[in-house]
Amino acid sequence: MATILVHVMPKPEILDPQGKAVGAALPRLGFDGISQVRQGKRFELTVDGEVTDEVLANVRKAAETLLSNPVIEDVVQVKVVREGGCGCGGHGHGAGKAEKDLLA
Amino acid sequence: MATILVHVMPKPEILDPQGKAVGAALPRLGFDGISQVRQGKRFELTVDGEVTDEVLANVRKAAETLLSNPVIEDVVQVKVVREGGCGCGGHGHGAGKAEKDLLA
Repeated sequence: MATILVHVMPKPEILDPQGKAVGAALPRLGFDGISQVRQGKRFELTVDGEVTDEVLANVRKAAETLLSNPVIEDVVQVKVVREGGCGCGGHGHGAGKAEKDLLA
Repeated sequence: MATILVHVMPKPEILDPQGKAVGAALPRLGFDGISQVRQGKRFELTVDGEVTDEVLANVRKAAETLLSNPVIEDVVQVKVVREGGCGCGGHGHGAGKAEKDLLA
């Protein structure tokens, strides 16, 4: 079992109302020093069995067609994490052993 | 100028309707081999000037109070990317020179 992370962001030229709203709220709530905020999506896909090239091609295609809207969003990262970890090192998730950043 | 990435995911025990909906759609659209999908948020915060400890503490606090809902979400990663890159290596974003994964 492996976890594949897919990160999707609004295209740089596209207006990002959510990011703008958060960016405007930060100074009001006392968080200074942050000049811009952009908000996107993070997906954790659990794949059963081995991550074959076919599975990877499948995930990349799904990322570009279903997990993102190619008109307004970019898939900025597809990252394979072996052995069940989610590759973020965060609490409760457990870091994967080998990570392979894979977008090309 | 630096970019700090903040990744937020629903707590594992919390129902993730968006992830479930995407997970159910994948096989219908011909994407097999993916047994579970969880959907969270990814933020790119642009910080002017040097990333000092104070700025980092500020970002961490903002991540845990404004960028996530601590009742149902976990901040799973706060990642500092130096010199303007967004640290994903994706097209159009440019990889940062030095990345520091920082959550502790």
